[in-house]
Amino acid sequence: MVEEDIDENHPRYNSLMMRKKISEAGEKGMLAQSAMIAHGRGEAFDYLLGEQTIPSAMAATREMAARLNAAERPVLSLNGNSIALAGPEFLKIASQLGCPVEINIFYRTPERMGALLANLKVAKQNLGLDVEILGGMPDARIPNLDGPRGACHEDGIFNADVVLVPLEDGDRCQALRAMGKDVLVVDLNPLSRSAKFASVTAVDEVTRVAKNLIQFIPERPPKTDWNNDNGLQDALNHIVNTMAKSGNQ
Amino acid sequence: MVEEDIDENHPRYNSLMMRKKISEAGEKGMLAQSAMIAHGRGEAFDYLLGEQTIPSAMAATREMAARLNAAERPVLSLNGNSIALAGPEFLKIASQLGCPVEINIFYRTPERMGALLANLKVAKQNLGLDVEILGGMPDARIPNLDGPRGACHEDGIFNADVVLVPLEDGDRCQALRAMGKDVLVVDLNPLSRSAKFASVTAVDEVTRVAKNLIQFIPERPPKTDWNNDNGLQDALNHIVNTMAKSGNQ
Repeated sequence: MVEEDIDENHPRYNSLMMRKKISEAGEKGMLAQSAMIAHGRGEAFDYLLGEQTIPSAMAATREMAARLNAAERPVLSLNGNSIALAGPEFLKIASQLGCPVEINIFYRTPERMGALLANLKVAKQNLGLDVEILGGMPDARIPNLDGPRGACHEDGIFNADVVLVPLEDGDRCQALRAMGKDVLVVDLNPLSRSAKFASVTAVDEVTRVAKNLIQFIPERPPKTDWNNDNGLQDALNHIVNTMAKSGNQ
Repeated sequence: MVEEDIDENHPRYNSLMMRKKISEAGEKGMLAQSAMIAHGRGEAFDYLLGEQTIPSAMAATREMAARLNAAERPVLSLNGNSIALAGPEFLKIASQLGCPVEINIFYRTPERMGALLANLKVAKQNLGLDVEILGGMPDARIPNLDGPRGACHEDGIFNADVVLVPLEDGDRCQALRAMGKDVLVVDLNPLSRSAKFASVTAVDEVTRVAKNLIQFIPERPPKTDWNNDNGLQDALNHIVNTMAKSGNQ
């Protein structure tokens, strides 16, 4: 269902385009209802960030590129919203890194998994990329994580040393850290559990991060002495200052 | 689709219950995909408010009760999310005031309107209330508002002097003000255009407001010399202070 045509000159064009992508993915059976609600929460935080990549998020993204380049077995773990919003971009990143992507969704049904696999395969074909897409036949489990979201591939998330998990849930982020992995999270809420548990958190919108990663990875930036708490505090300060200023207009 | 059973002891039980109501209403065809995204935005702001009715929102709700009681032709204008979250409560309020409710939705389709009308009629029957439900056969238009959301009933919104419009869009709020009406808005985002254009804004979650109105209306509180900007500034200060504190934990 395309509910509206979006005017390119609208000041919030990008945000409206993302909402449209999420709505359309919902219609195609790629998302749970709760995924659309989650997108709305993200929209609110992005609005408070000014719908822009702030300098601390750009630094976090550069650090992610450094760690993904240095990894022995990197994997991109994608959920429905990541695929709906930036599936082609993540395929491009996986191709740059020579690593697989693995689909991992919170509310797993065969229909939804099938729709997501099909969507990524079509995107891969359109882009002419050679990327392994995992997720359809999980053969391992993330320890201490109940239910379908614990299912994963041995050749993917299970044996990875660095995992990029945009839009992750807090429990799974924590469980991946407990396995000793480097966990790279994209989350617009600097107060979320995922944001706090991650090794590196970009407080930024997932399509902006994906585009920035595509730029950074070939530049091979060096790893730094990363302090994740500082990045989260900076993002929070930015939001608080923006709101305080808006109120004084 | 009930995606999860919700534990009553969960610290965010109410928020999860509301999410469940929205998901279920989506499954029943009562909501556009964008309505679920809008709910998520509300969730984020409610989280920043501490999922509570702050004193300035309570004062705004009391003022709304005073104005609804004093109105000659009050109307409750309900959209899909208001009905999904608090349909029975709004029927109770309409019964207290002896006024109609009017369903008015942004993305109008006969199917969605039918599902919402049916939902309210069943709720009305279950509660044994005598309330007129408008919206199905609009015969008037709100001036300067394009498309289906401008359609309304002459005996409802069109000739009302005071309109309660929870979860309103900014354009429609402005168009109703331009008709000279007193417009009472419930919005969790104190920076939204609806919040700013309204005569009275409760920066609060719609089910909490509905429950508070049910308490206030029979108490017949007096109208006050209401300054809406002060209420919005207070809500914004509350959010900013909460976030600033969270960041220092």
